[in-house]
Amino acid sequence: MSILRGFAKTARDDEAARRLRAEIEEFNAEYCAALDENRIADWPAFFTEDAVYRITARENADADLPVGLVYCEGQGMLRDRALAIEKTSMFAPRYLLHQVSNIRILAIAGETVTAQANYLVLQTLVDEKTTLHQAGRYFDRFHRAEGRLLLRERHCVYDTLLIDNSLVMPV
Amino acid sequence: MSILRGFAKTARDDEAARRLRAEIEEFNAEYCAALDENRIADWPAFFTEDAVYRITARENADADLPVGLVYCEGQGMLRDRALAIEKTSMFAPRYLLHQVSNIRILAIAGETVTAQANYLVLQTLVDEKTTLHQAGRYFDRFHRAEGRLLLRERHCVYDTLLIDNSLVMPV
Amino acid sequence: MSILRGFAKTARDDEAARRLRAEIEEFNAEYCAALDENRIADWPAFFTEDAVYRITARENADADLPVGLVYCEGQGMLRDRALAIEKTSMFAPRYLLHQVSNIRILAIAGETVTAQANYLVLQTLVDEKTTLHQAGRYFDRFHRAEGRLLLRERHCVYDTLLIDNSLVMPV
Repeated sequence: MSILRGFAKTARDDEAARRLRAEIEEFNAEYCAALDENRIADWPAFFTEDAVYRITARENADADLPVGLVYCEGQGMLRDRALAIEKTSMFAPRYLLHQVSNIRILAIAGETVTAQANYLVLQTLVDEKTTLHQAGRYFDRFHRAEGRLLLRERHCVYDTLLIDNSLVMPV
Repeated sequence: MSILRGFAKTARDDEAARRLRAEIEEFNAEYCAALDENRIADWPAFFTEDAVYRITARENADADLPVGLVYCEGQGMLRDRALAIEKTSMFAPRYLLHQVSNIRILAIAGETVTAQANYLVLQTLVDEKTTLHQAGRYFDRFHRAEGRLLLRERHCVYDTLLIDNSLVMPV
Repeated sequence: MSILRGFAKTARDDEAARRLRAEIEEFNAEYCAALDENRIADWPAFFTEDAVYRITARENADADLPVGLVYCEGQGMLRDRALAIEKTSMFAPRYLLHQVSNIRILAIAGETVTAQANYLVLQTLVDEKTTLHQAGRYFDRFHRAEGRLLLRERHCVYDTLLIDNSLVMPV
């Protein structure tokens, strides 16, 4: 049983999977660097034109509910969201730092790669200690176009149910 | 001086070690996914027939004491433990998330690979914030049989001395 | 915009970068193991003769200020610092555990590799819970000599502004 429907492991851990894992590790490092450096305008470029981006609680994922805290479909919505965050940073200044680990290649089919990873977002508010902001899993569907992997789906399934209400930033 | 006796670094960081490190990274991702998804019945399959599994405090490891919080020897004990946990989940529901990093290849000898890694277990209880449940190190002896690595020894040496008394789950 | 001047990303994520990333991952695992095992005398050997080592707050890095909490230039200062820590461990006994992730290859030029990584230092004091001691980023300039990578620059830029005053140890 996987946590999310459509994300069962079928791929074997062979040489091809190992190369993809290294590539996805790079992808995630670049993706997180954009968020951690507040380059939110760069964020939509990690997705395909028709991509789905969702942040949802593990409770919802386990119950196979499509709802979530954040849901974007297509570049238009992703760019809207990025713009909204850029323009309305009224919330208290904070630093974010992502740690991504435990990447798994779940399935490989033509130009599509299904993968999973564990993420941890650390947050530091001015004059406060660094805290665990959110712990969760990425469930990803990558599509390769012109030699490059892009996200066609990213479901961020978080364990942390008590998230402070600053969750405007994507993870 | 290594933390655990018998786990000194003798391997050179060459191409062979690099390949093994990638393979062990995959192994650990699969191992942790089983635990994080509550597939505890799958856990013994990561070990050889005669495997030793131990969870012990760093204090004990530093003092070279064999005792520990958890000690299993052989598939029988591992399966007993898995079954016991499955049947008696009386403790409060919780989510676990593992982060494994800093994998080191310590020694390579024939079909045996000695390795180390740092782990972090994050725990989320219902209606509580995510907390650092346990931080520690895996000291591993892998054995390759039929092309696949399995654990012959896994010593989980935790730094966290104050662990809440829910430590029934393996790490 | 990068966080630190002189650390913009220019390298492409190709096969050469991938090999370097694996090598730097090994380097960081060994570097952190030395610190986590209290082998502080081994720490200067990870640097070149003329290396710069600095720990500084993100605030300072963002403002392009050269100042920092710790600043060492050259093997002499690194060894002095290591010796001072070894001789004067008057602070309360503690365990440290490093997690390094999200390694990025920023630039490659001859024998020099510029890279970045996210680090997390977990700290456990006797009879206390494990805490997030410091979250931050390594900004590194590696130099290869005699086949081996060594640090010519390591800037540890931490997000965590409230660090307890035990920050004698390098990270």
